[in-house]
Amino acid sequence: MSIQTALTQRLGIRNPVLLAPMDVVADARLTSAVSAAGGLGILGGGYGDAEWLTREIARLKETQVRFGIGFITWSLAKQPHLLDLALESAPAAIMLSFGDAAPFAEPVKRSGAALICQVQTLDMARKAVSVGADILVAQGTEAGGHGASRATLTLVPELVDAIGPDVPVVAAGGIADGRGLAAALMLGASGVLMGTRFYATKEAAVAAEAKARVQRATGDETARGLVFDIVRKRVWPVPFTGRCLRNALVERWTGRELELVRHADEEHAKFLAAREAGDFDIAAVIAGEAAGLVRDIPSAREVVERVSRDAEALLDGASQRLRA
Amino acid sequence: MSIQTALTQRLGIRNPVLLAPMDVVADARLTSAVSAAGGLGILGGGYGDAEWLTREIARLKETQVRFGIGFITWSLAKQPHLLDLALESAPAAIMLSFGDAAPFAEPVKRSGAALICQVQTLDMARKAVSVGADILVAQGTEAGGHGASRATLTLVPELVDAIGPDVPVVAAGGIADGRGLAAALMLGASGVLMGTRFYATKEAAVAAEAKARVQRATGDETARGLVFDIVRKRVWPVPFTGRCLRNALVERWTGRELELVRHADEEHAKFLAAREAGDFDIAAVIAGEAAGLVRDIPSAREVVERVSRDAEALLDGASQRLRA
Repeated sequence: MSIQTALTQRLGIRNPVLLAPMDVVADARLTSAVSAAGGLGILGGGYGDAEWLTREIARLKETQVRFGIGFITWSLAKQPHLLDLALESAPAAIMLSFGDAAPFAEPVKRSGAALICQVQTLDMARKAVSVGADILVAQGTEAGGHGASRATLTLVPELVDAIGPDVPVVAAGGIADGRGLAAALMLGASGVLMGTRFYATKEAAVAAEAKARVQRATGDETARGLVFDIVRKRVWPVPFTGRCLRNALVERWTGRELELVRHADEEHAKFLAAREAGDFDIAAVIAGEAAGLVRDIPSAREVVERVSRDAEALLDGASQRLRA
Repeated sequence: MSIQTALTQRLGIRNPVLLAPMDVVADARLTSAVSAAGGLGILGGGYGDAEWLTREIARLKETQVRFGIGFITWSLAKQPHLLDLALESAPAAIMLSFGDAAPFAEPVKRSGAALICQVQTLDMARKAVSVGADILVAQGTEAGGHGASRATLTLVPELVDAIGPDVPVVAAGGIADGRGLAAALMLGASGVLMGTRFYATKEAAVAAEAKARVQRATGDETARGLVFDIVRKRVWPVPFTGRCLRNALVERWTGRELELVRHADEEHAKFLAAREAGDFDIAAVIAGEAAGLVRDIPSAREVVERVSRDAEALLDGASQRLRA
């Protein structure tokens, strides 16, 4: 008998676990594996690449599982037709992160897909609800990849109180095991969305060395900043910064970002070469603080089942265990 | 029947709730109120002022409650005799935060007081345990006042795994209600330490206007940085920064800290005048992200009882509530 919440009911899933739509990393293989295990896989549409999307959606349709599709909202705004391409595949949900969801809300809702909006502040949450978000993902600063400065532990209960019971809140950032899911449920969340934990799974579309680095890292070995965005030449809108494992590139340039901008061309070339060569002293391993809780590289199914099972056991035993 | 953990057993308290030893704010009145309600009050010895300590300890002794005494470790190192003054009062615990506890561990342990070490990283935790810490406080970046960059949600379970069951871990940073205590227990913590929540109580030694600003603030309205340390002329060692409510001073100088250093004398004078006048557009209201969860100014007893009772109810009901 698994954990049932407003999220599992709304999305028709067995376990309150969502896959973060990590750009390119969350491809059809990883997405379908999470859905097949009873969570909801959300394809990492990211910045938006029509060819990649078309191919991965076709692969997803072959698996016959339900799935979501995620986009970086400010990037989708530059090529809004990609939303049509996504909606044609009849996804269970569209997830929009980092930017104004308003221009996309109406077509998503009309399609019957759930509109999931990821937010990082109270203001963003209120805006998302006002344009019709069905589900909010409250993302804390401990998350890997792009995010902002609020922590999950305070953002979740504050949003739950501000938004009320009609819109389920999902906790994201810093969660990688059953303890995190159980804690999120105590905070009032209806489930969790995990990136780093799924990055280090067999199915994730990432180099083996990058997964191994996540497995080895402690939570102290990540940093949120601008270095990778500068060398990738992907400038994000304020207030978003990126969290990755600290590596030689981060150590070299943190605190000297303006100087790095002046050397952006040569550093960009080196970065592309390093990424091609799998040199993660320069290329980015995108991971959150939860890397310190990741100690193996199991299948995505094993992750969904373990996190759900461990959270259930913790919640079942809590009342007895904590009495004199 | 209240929640019993390794922390309540080790400290001989009824509720797993500790008062953060906020410099000057956690005086004898607030400290004794928390202890009388079944938590452990920890006197805010802070930077160390012999006259204040002598007076507040005498007041505490009159109340006949058990109590702890907290210090800022790097500041205590400049006047180590203050530890003797503290130990003469036979405290139940000495709490050391921000710096190397090694020089102070032996006299604390010899006195019979529990040695509580507050840490912000895995390395700090290992060092604290190696010098004999009896209890670790894992403090996340969402905390008010000084702290570092890791978030509570990941730091707690990672420390629990790294340190093992012999040293209870207390969660600090971002906790202000029963949801936070229940979540902390699910993460493997044995209790919580709260600052911001107790700052906004009747007993806290803070101006009414400062408490009112915490009550009104959302969690988005705090910032971690260096502005207040510069204008106070209190330079802290790396990696510690301070979190306060954003106010006009913070908005004016954030991002221009080097320029502020060049104007430190005049800004310091203005800051002292503002503090004297209770002008919190310039003076600091020290608060963490949990300010967004603080909506009243109750007694400290009410806080201890409400947090404990609400956490118990959440944990008692979790198993049933989360089933289909």
